Parts: sequence; C-alpha cells; structure tokens
Amino acid sequence: MATSNISDNSSSESDVPEVVIQRLPLYVRVLSHFSSAGNDVISSEQLGNRLQVTPAQIRKDLSYFGRFGKQGRGYDVAMLEGQLRSILGLDRTWNAAVVGMGRLGRAVVSYPGFAPEGFKIVAAFDTSAAIVDQTISKLTVRSISRLTETVKSLDIKIGIVTVPIDHAQEVIDALVNAGIKSILNYAPLSPQVPEGVTVRGIDPVLSLQSMTYYIR
Amino acid sequence: MATSNISDNSSSESDVPEVVIQRLPLYVRVLSHFSSAGNDVISSEQLGNRLQVTPAQIRKDLSYFGRFGKQGRGYDVAMLEGQLRSILGLDRTWNAAVVGMGRLGRAVVSYPGFAPEGFKIVAAFDTSAAIVDQTISKLTVRSISRLTETVKSLDIKIGIVTVPIDHAQEVIDALVNAGIKSILNYAPLSPQVPEGVTVRGIDPVLSLQSMTYYIR
Repeated sequence: MATSNISDNSSSESDVPEVVIQRLPLYVRVLSHFSSAGNDVISSEQLGNRLQVTPAQIRKDLSYFGRFGKQGRGYDVAMLEGQLRSILGLDRTWNAAVVGMGRLGRAVVSYPGFAPEGFKIVAAFDTSAAIVDQTISKLTVRSISRLTETVKSLDIKIGIVTVPIDHAQEVIDALVNAGIKSILNYAPLSPQVPEGVTVRGIDPVLSLQSMTYYIR
Repeated sequence: MATSNISDNSSSESDVPEVVIQRLPLYVRVLSHFSSAGNDVISSEQLGNRLQVTPAQIRKDLSYFGRFGKQGRGYDVAMLEGQLRSILGLDRTWNAAVVGMGRLGRAVVSYPGFAPEGFKIVAAFDTSAAIVDQTISKLTVRSISRLTETVKSLDIKIGIVTVPIDHAQEVIDALVNAGIKSILNYAPLSPQVPEGVTVRGIDPVLSLQSMTYYIR
C-alpha cells in the first residue's frame, strides 16, 4: 500500500486526525461549486481562500490520502472531488432514521438537503402514542420499541436524534444497541458512546456562544 | 496588561486562535455540569476526559487568557466558569433576529434552549406576504424590508438565517448591511462576509458527510 497511490483509499483510518476528516466535506463542496462554474483546475490557494484555511493546511490534509496534484499545476477539480467522495463514502446512498418527531424532528424529515447528498431518511420514531402511526413527510412514525428490528430490516446506518435533552442519552444508547455507529445529535449535550461510534452534535447555542466573544 | 492577570479579559482578540474560542463554550458547559453536581474543583484531566481532548490542550487553551489554576491543585469550578463566561460575553443577554419563517425558522424561534443561555429572539422576518404579519411564537413576522430599522430599534446583535440556500447570501448581505456582526447560518453554504463579521454554519449534511468515512 504505497502512500503515493492515489487510488488507495483503504489505508488505516486511525492514521488520519478526525479534524482532517471533518474538513474534507468542505473541500468536496467547494470543488463541486468550482466544477459547476466550469473550472477544471483549482490551486490550493483558491481552495484555501474559499475556506479560510492556509494552502499549506490543505496540502497537508490531502497528503494523508496520497498525491492529488502536481507542484505548481493545481488540482484536477473533477478528479479530486471524485476521490474525496470515494474516501468519505459519499459515492453511495446511506439510510438514516430520525428519533423524536416533535417540531425539530418534523423539520429534519422534511429538510430537502439530505436526499441530493445521498442521505435518505427511511424511518421516523417517537415514544408518544399520540404521534406513533401518524404520517409525517410520507413516513409512518414508528414506536421506539421497534428500533432494532427496523434498523436491520431497512439497512439503517445513521441515527438522527431530535428528542429533548432529557431523553437524548437513552435514545443514543438505544441506537448504539441497535447497531448504529454514526449519530447526528441535535440535543445540546455531549453524549457518552462506546469506541467505534461517531457522534456529531448540532448545537446552535454553542455556535452562538463562540461568536459573542467577538462582539462583547 | 500583564498576561498573568486573570481578570484581564481585554487583551487583543487577534491573539487567540478561533478554534480555541470555539472550544471555550464546551468548557463552560462541562464546568456548569460539574458545578451542578456539587464539585468545587476540577482537574484538566477530568475536563479533558469529558471533552475528549488532552489535558495539555486544555491547559494551553486556557493559558491564552491568563492563569486559572495552581499546578496540581485543579481549577476552582465556579471561578473558572465565571471567568470563561465573562471572556465569551456570556454574562449578559443578546438579542437575536431570525430571518426565514418556513418550517425551520418556526422550529428555531420555538426552540427552548436559547433563552436560558441569554439569547433572546426578539424579531422574525420573512419576504413572503403570506407570512408577514402572522404571529409565530409570540413574534409578529416582519417584512425583510424593515430589517435595518428593527435591528437598530431592538438592539439586535445576532442574525439567525433560516432561509433556503438560494436566498442565504442575499439575506446575509442584508444582515451585514444592517450592522449585524454575528450570524448563525442554517443554510448549507459558506457565505462571503467582510472582515469583522463572524458566521457559524449549522449544516447537518457536512456533519453526516464526515461520519460516513468511519462506516464506509
């Protein structure tokens, strides 16, 4: 497995810092925009300029996955985008389930941004008998007691947690027990999960709290 | 302005990397939890353990703002929380406006997590004549044409963008023109803003795209 082989995406994931993985989707998005605008080649300066990171950082990030560009020539936009999509697993569709069908959960299942990116919400869950069996955005809400069987039967790989904070840890535990390894968590807490499970938190308050520093 | 003076929060903000500022609200949250649990002292190991960062990283992050703990003694939980809140500007209330009153905007204005943290949504805007003048979560939706006057009259310091992606850049431009310097953006794009304006993006797709790497 030569590190200079650009098609080798199977290198150990433990080699790559998580922050680098978190930046790659941004690179994919910018490359996609450049491609749509008719650009065939992009420099690390152009890419960095759009993302407010240094060109050196971009070159270092990409170096974990092999050699993508030629010195002074820039990157082939379409090729780099395709390779990054493959590295990230974005060249396929992923089934997801939403747990918690209150106002936030309803907004999430009707969000039009997931499907075009290959994320398909195929199931919705709630604990409340008043909500179970309702149809929301073409999904029949299921009882949380059916989580494990549904995860298996619908090949669900991603859990999206939209329950209130008081129930978030128990829902996350249930998702983990059902075999889910990727969790998008809208509840404002840092949940405890076993190794091998990835949680990304969506927390508007944390975002707000890191902006007031600049206007205080 | 001695750097060792713990009460000196006025040092130049350009000294502190943005990633450090983004971590501080997490520290505040963990400290608040420890305090509620009756703990008076916390070690950098305990703090790091809860946040999955190294104790050395925590000590380095805090060192930008002075000396908070004594070697081997840990941090005084209440004092550290108070000082970090002051540094971040979280010891006061901030008024915010939401622009875009579709399903997502309605979920945001009814989200109960903002007010307890000092973020008060005092105005809601939309462009659609069908929505303007409706009352949503006790707010009368205003026309976007009234943005600048409302920002001034209600002392709004934060803009929350919940419009579809096609309109996000123009809404962000309008907020900037109205004098807003802190923008929480739910639309999935990296907007262009002038220097001095901070944008934090809430983008569930980016979060999902950085998790599939681990399960592909």
